[in-house]
Amino acid sequence: MEKTTRNDFSFQLQSKDGSARAGVLTTPHGIVETPVFMPVGTQATVKSLTPAQLNEMQVQIILSNTYHLYLRPGADVIQEFGGLHNFMSWQKPVLTDSGGFQVFSLGNLRQVSDDGVVFKSHIDGSIHTFTPESAMAIQEKLGADIIMAFDECSEPHDRKYNEQALARTHRWAERCLRAKTRPDQALFGIVQGGIFPDLRTQSAEFLKSLDFPGYSIGGLSVGESKEDTLAVIEVVNAVLPDDKPRYLMGVGTPYDLIEGIRRGIDMFDCVLPTRLARHHAAQTLQGRINLARAEFTRDHAPIDSECGCYTCSHFSRAYLRHLIIAKEMLAATLISIHNIFTLTSLAQALRKSILEERFETTAAHLLAGLENTL
Amino acid sequence: MEKTTRNDFSFQLQSKDGSARAGVLTTPHGIVETPVFMPVGTQATVKSLTPAQLNEMQVQIILSNTYHLYLRPGADVIQEFGGLHNFMSWQKPVLTDSGGFQVFSLGNLRQVSDDGVVFKSHIDGSIHTFTPESAMAIQEKLGADIIMAFDECSEPHDRKYNEQALARTHRWAERCLRAKTRPDQALFGIVQGGIFPDLRTQSAEFLKSLDFPGYSIGGLSVGESKEDTLAVIEVVNAVLPDDKPRYLMGVGTPYDLIEGIRRGIDMFDCVLPTRLARHHAAQTLQGRINLARAEFTRDHAPIDSECGCYTCSHFSRAYLRHLIIAKEMLAATLISIHNIFTLTSLAQALRKSILEERFETTAAHLLAGLENTL
Repeated sequence: MEKTTRNDFSFQLQSKDGSARAGVLTTPHGIVETPVFMPVGTQATVKSLTPAQLNEMQVQIILSNTYHLYLRPGADVIQEFGGLHNFMSWQKPVLTDSGGFQVFSLGNLRQVSDDGVVFKSHIDGSIHTFTPESAMAIQEKLGADIIMAFDECSEPHDRKYNEQALARTHRWAERCLRAKTRPDQALFGIVQGGIFPDLRTQSAEFLKSLDFPGYSIGGLSVGESKEDTLAVIEVVNAVLPDDKPRYLMGVGTPYDLIEGIRRGIDMFDCVLPTRLARHHAAQTLQGRINLARAEFTRDHAPIDSECGCYTCSHFSRAYLRHLIIAKEMLAATLISIHNIFTLTSLAQALRKSILEERFETTAAHLLAGLENTL
Repeated sequence: MEKTTRNDFSFQLQSKDGSARAGVLTTPHGIVETPVFMPVGTQATVKSLTPAQLNEMQVQIILSNTYHLYLRPGADVIQEFGGLHNFMSWQKPVLTDSGGFQVFSLGNLRQVSDDGVVFKSHIDGSIHTFTPESAMAIQEKLGADIIMAFDECSEPHDRKYNEQALARTHRWAERCLRAKTRPDQALFGIVQGGIFPDLRTQSAEFLKSLDFPGYSIGGLSVGESKEDTLAVIEVVNAVLPDDKPRYLMGVGTPYDLIEGIRRGIDMFDCVLPTRLARHHAAQTLQGRINLARAEFTRDHAPIDSECGCYTCSHFSRAYLRHLIIAKEMLAATLISIHNIFTLTSLAQALRKSILEERFETTAAHLLAGLENTL
């Protein structure tokens, strides 16, 4: 069952093709081949899917959210079960975020000080405080293989706010490192700095000096332009050390994966595949398909005839549309299976192209297919 | 894929222990070992479960509803796919009801004549007519292995109504036999007659004379007492031929299965396992458990420690309660898996006890466990 007594986190860079990287993350719950897409299981479940289904889709690692689990069912409950892996019956690697992004998303419901963040629960309005120290303590109870530093997410275009938030994020990063006690968890630092290249560079330099076992890029995918996102990835990855994994937080379209991997990103997570599925949209390498549309009523084809997922191997667009119109839960399950498989297998295909030194050809071919959809 | 060109429906009675029977149904899509519980896939999906999950639970045959599929997506659409098996990607046997029960459930929304039933769609209020002939034509398009005669379901305690409805049901049974054209589908007759033993006997005698390949008992589980239900089963089964399968419609608690099998029933169907699951209730051989209750917050035990289903092998009551409280769809999926497995494996265990001539001991033991819950 639980095997978190070993202290064996490491990252091995296997190959580079341009800036694109193929590597292997080793964690107490097994290895992860990178680049990798991590489905999100916010409340200790990837919505509508069993762990057995995730395994079949060759999901290697999932993300879960500290903020949500802290509020419900509570970190103590999960600790009693020996951590998230046992609680949700997922014995492969898990990553938890720090709650930083979530509490900042609460807007008026929170107050920030140097000590931490006071916030109101979105569930019952009760008052709580996250500090770097408590974010570490909670994540240690949750027991993920990879945990995140507690950071301040800021509006990406506000220079003055970003300068102040960055200084605080850096002080908090040091406090997280000091507060962390479990040797079997890897703590990643989070690079912030909005859309400002100099702040991003400064943040990457500072966190690099703290020698984290991995780094993530935060504060993106919150309203900035694609160009700004890609520029930030480039300046940050120019600073971050080659021998540490790089995780781009909250990003998960096929386009984002291709362009992120091209610029040296190793890990991605996003709620999009399951959220889109609940709203009837399938992600494909030829763009998104709204399966509720009447034109699919008698369509015998699968979502994507080139896709090897369980859904595309067994079900027509007509059947999926029927499930949607009939308000059947199975629609969300089957489309989620397809969407997650699309992103995990895209990351695997790109990994293979890196190992075979043909990344740019593969990426160009894929981007051409996506072109109409941007 | 579709293999409905063979005409190979048969029933073999393997063993009797008292009135309890073990047999084998052979259909164009494979065999069914009886007694058997059939999960209900009203809209061409057993709610929240994939066919792969049903296979893992050793489900042998499912039921789907003609009324619902006729309205949505339409029998023509399903026929275009070669029938229900291909449409929903379930290659094992399927049974469809005739729509009779559903249109009578509509109450004021329908009008009965000798010709058939005019009814209003519950979806959009549009007007439709089912006759014995159209019920056969629709079920032939849906392509199930076993189809049902179109019958009139009546209020079980109204003698006069039952006499009239029974005469009509019998005329309709003859019309169904004449209207049926596909040699690869077995048409079952439906015994009606409310709670009146003489009407039930008369109905069983009449339908027996028409030599259907199987018989079902309809009009129960609609408000009559347990005693009335069991009495009806006894008088009907005293008439029905031993060499034909007997199907008790719409019944699906552990108690109902044990007492039905004890009286010679071979097949059961019910929406209860999936409906209860969506309302947080687990069916066990020790009674129902409402998993939303606070007492399960830290309960490490599975729903039923003696159960071998996927859910009980992997998840605690605490995790299931968490999913329920957090309004996660996975709760319905995992509890449905448990509930259906409980009924399918109960039927299999009772089958084994019949083959080993220890049915009464097994039934008595099981009923003792359920006793507190009646």
